[in-house]
Formats: sequence, structure tokens, C-alpha cells
Amino acid sequence: CVQILFNLEQALTSVKGGGKKLFGNVSIGLPIEFGNNLVIPLLSHFGLKHPDVTFSLQLGFASSMNNLLLKGELDFAIVDEYKLDSRIYVEKLSYETLELSIRRDKLPSRGPQNKKFFELLDYVEYEKGQPILKMWFAHHLKQTSLDLKVRATVMDVQGIAKFVLSGLGAGIIPGHLFEKLVKENYDIYRFPGCGKSLRNSISVAYLKERTHSLAASTVLDFLKKELIIV
Amino acid sequence: CVQILFNLEQALTSVKGGGKKLFGNVSIGLPIEFGNNLVIPLLSHFGLKHPDVTFSLQLGFASSMNNLLLKGELDFAIVDEYKLDSRIYVEKLSYETLELSIRRDKLPSRGPQNKKFFELLDYVEYEKGQPILKMWFAHHLKQTSLDLKVRATVMDVQGIAKFVLSGLGAGIIPGHLFEKLVKENYDIYRFPGCGKSLRNSISVAYLKERTHSLAASTVLDFLKKELIIV
Repeated sequence: CVQILFNLEQALTSVKGGGKKLFGNVSIGLPIEFGNNLVIPLLSHFGLKHPDVTFSLQLGFASSMNNLLLKGELDFAIVDEYKLDSRIYVEKLSYETLELSIRRDKLPSRGPQNKKFFELLDYVEYEKGQPILKMWFAHHLKQTSLDLKVRATVMDVQGIAKFVLSGLGAGIIPGHLFEKLVKENYDIYRFPGCGKSLRNSISVAYLKERTHSLAASTVLDFLKKELIIV
Repeated sequence: CVQILFNLEQALTSVKGGGKKLFGNVSIGLPIEFGNNLVIPLLSHFGLKHPDVTFSLQLGFASSMNNLLLKGELDFAIVDEYKLDSRIYVEKLSYETLELSIRRDKLPSRGPQNKKFFELLDYVEYEKGQPILKMWFAHHLKQTSLDLKVRATVMDVQGIAKFVLSGLGAGIIPGHLFEKLVKENYDIYRFPGCGKSLRNSISVAYLKERTHSLAASTVLDFLKKELIIV
């Protein structure tokens, strides 16, 4: 009986990818910053344990992941908040916080952080129309009509961070990047707002009809287990 | 006469943008990593001196810059090596080196760094077909037929760096990023190759027929002066 259980366990382990049988390429879509900071180290960890598994990554926004999933070019994608096609299965996994930050020497020294205070600052934003700044102010100040002076737009988290660090203005970056920069001794300040961080949900997404290879489903299970916090 | 010279100088300064008359938006295309690391801090510096100038940046590969320039959506772009449309004026400014790097604990401890040595390593690359690794080996080893085991592809310098730092394989990153990582105390190794670094040229590009605003031409002159090393 012990032998039977042992064999059963071995069979299960093998199916789960715990054995040495995993091989082949797994194609994954990722949001740029969350992917680089949090997912790639996990994939390296997995890849070091499974030397015959390779990865093809596509970094980008959820809108492009939507199309790549529909075209069958990805085994699965990790995406942030975005309405994907109904043929795509989506499961919430985690979230990142979005933090308005500024180089500390650019922070006005006093005054309540109200509408007037924020309208005196300079900003950097991802794109025209200030969608992310608007979200932040709607969440934290219940304000939707601030008149913000945006000095630069760049659709790239690292670019926003670089503008903030070089002092051009305040900008919104994910909490995990803020923490990383603080660890690297950059002197930046996070506006507390209402005290409850704005969140950007992170989900896993794949075509409902897609059959995953053993390698792909094992990587997917591994990432879900490692990333899940909701 | 002193007064005349003074007025003349003032007039020149004003034309050059040294005065306070600069205003308006400047739209610039940039290569992602070179842009984030080297150009954005310069733009912040400029922007802090000229509070009425704003920037719209597009980060991406030279191929997309080609199209954006032709559509008139950029005042100018900074691009790496790529054959642009003949209607675009291109002027070499600078270069970045491309360095094959590996986490030091993943470096085989001995052996001459020849074909056999390199074929035993794992790699990460930007895209299928290994174009950048091939360039590196052609330049340094005069080898074009290595059989390289590529564990992951990702079209993103930060992604390649993260795979290298988390130990999945050796990968090629720009010299300026390698130096930054070393400064941040990551223990990574740069393969010396033939001793003379592979270079990726950096040029400024704009539509020949485009008329630049005073702000755009002043930013362009400033960047050229700051970035030029060839």
C-alpha cells in the first residue's frame, strides 16, 4: 500500500511538473514594470530548476495582450485593469499600489495638502489628459477638477521615475518601484493622500479554449501561487 | 559700444534660448534605455530652467520613430542604428557600448573564453534569431556559427538585465546600464571579448522639411551639446 501511494504521489508530482519532465517554450505576456520587477525573478527561479523550459516574453499594455491572446500567440498573460475580450478568462491575482511621489527637496515645506497645495506643484504623467493623476486625485481628494501643470508625458514607468528623481515634477509610480528606489537611497517622498492607497489590480488571463502544455500549465500554477495576494 | 555689444549679446542669448522667452511643447522620440538613463535627466535639467517648456516623449525603437517622424508627430528623435527614410536628416551624436554580462556566481571558473566555453553557457536575448548575441560574437570572436542555448527572450533592456541579475543566463546590456548596476552593488561580470567594445551608435534625427519652434531647436541644441562624444 505504501508503494502504491508512493507511485501515485510520483505520478502526481510528475504531472504537476515537480519531476524532471518539463520541456518546451512558454510564451507569456506581462505588464512592463510589474513583469520586470516581480515576474522575471520568479521565471528565472523556475527556469533554473527546469533547464529544458524556455520563455518568450512580450512586455506591454493589457490592450496589446488582449490581441496577442486572441491571436493565440501567448499561453497566458498577466495584465492590469483593462476590459479584455469575453473569450478570455481572467482571474484576479494581486495588485500594485499607485503612489504619487516627488523628490523630497521639491516638496513644499508646509501647508495642508489640499487642492490649492497640489495645484502649485509641477507634474509628470503617462499620457495626455492625465488619466492616472486624475484617478489618484479622485481616489484621495475626491477631486476631479484640479488644474495641474504637467511638464512632461512619457508612457513608461521608468521614465516617470527618472523625471521624478531628477526633480522635474511629482509623478505616479507603483509602490514596488517606490520601495526599490528608497532602498537604493533615493530621497523621495510619497504623498499620503487619504491614507488608503490607490490600487491597480493584477490578473492572469488566457484564452478559454486554449490547451496548455505541461510546461505552460506548471509555470502558470507556479506564478499564481507566488503572486496571489487577494 | 559696450552697450551695443551688450544688447547684441542679449539678443543672441534670447535667440539661443538663454533668455526667458522659451515656451511650448517639444515632442521627442527616444530609445527606451538610453532615453531613460541619459536623456530624461538632461530634459529635467532644461525643464527646470525653462518653466514654460513641456515635453511629450515617445519611447521605442528606431523603426517606430521613423514612422512618427514621417507623420510629423515628433520635433526630433534620438535613435540607434537603423536605416531611416531618406526624407529624414540623421546626425551621429554618440554611442553606447553593448556588453555581454553574467551574474558572477554563474561564470564558469576557468577555461579560455573560446567557442566551446561560450556554448556551455545559458543566455537571454531580445528576440528570436539571437540578433544581438550574434553581433557580439561576430565582433569579439569572429564567430558566426555558435550554438547558443537561449533560455528566454524579452524585447526590453530592463527585462534582460533582470534575467541576468536573477541568474538565468548571460545577456547583453548597454555599458551605461552595466555601470549603474555595478554602482548599485550587483555582482555582475562583463566578458572582455577581444578587448574593444561593440558599439551601438546614437544619432539625432528629424524631418528635413520640419521647421522647429524656438523651444524645440533650443532643446535640440542643448541635447546635442550634452550628448555629443563623436
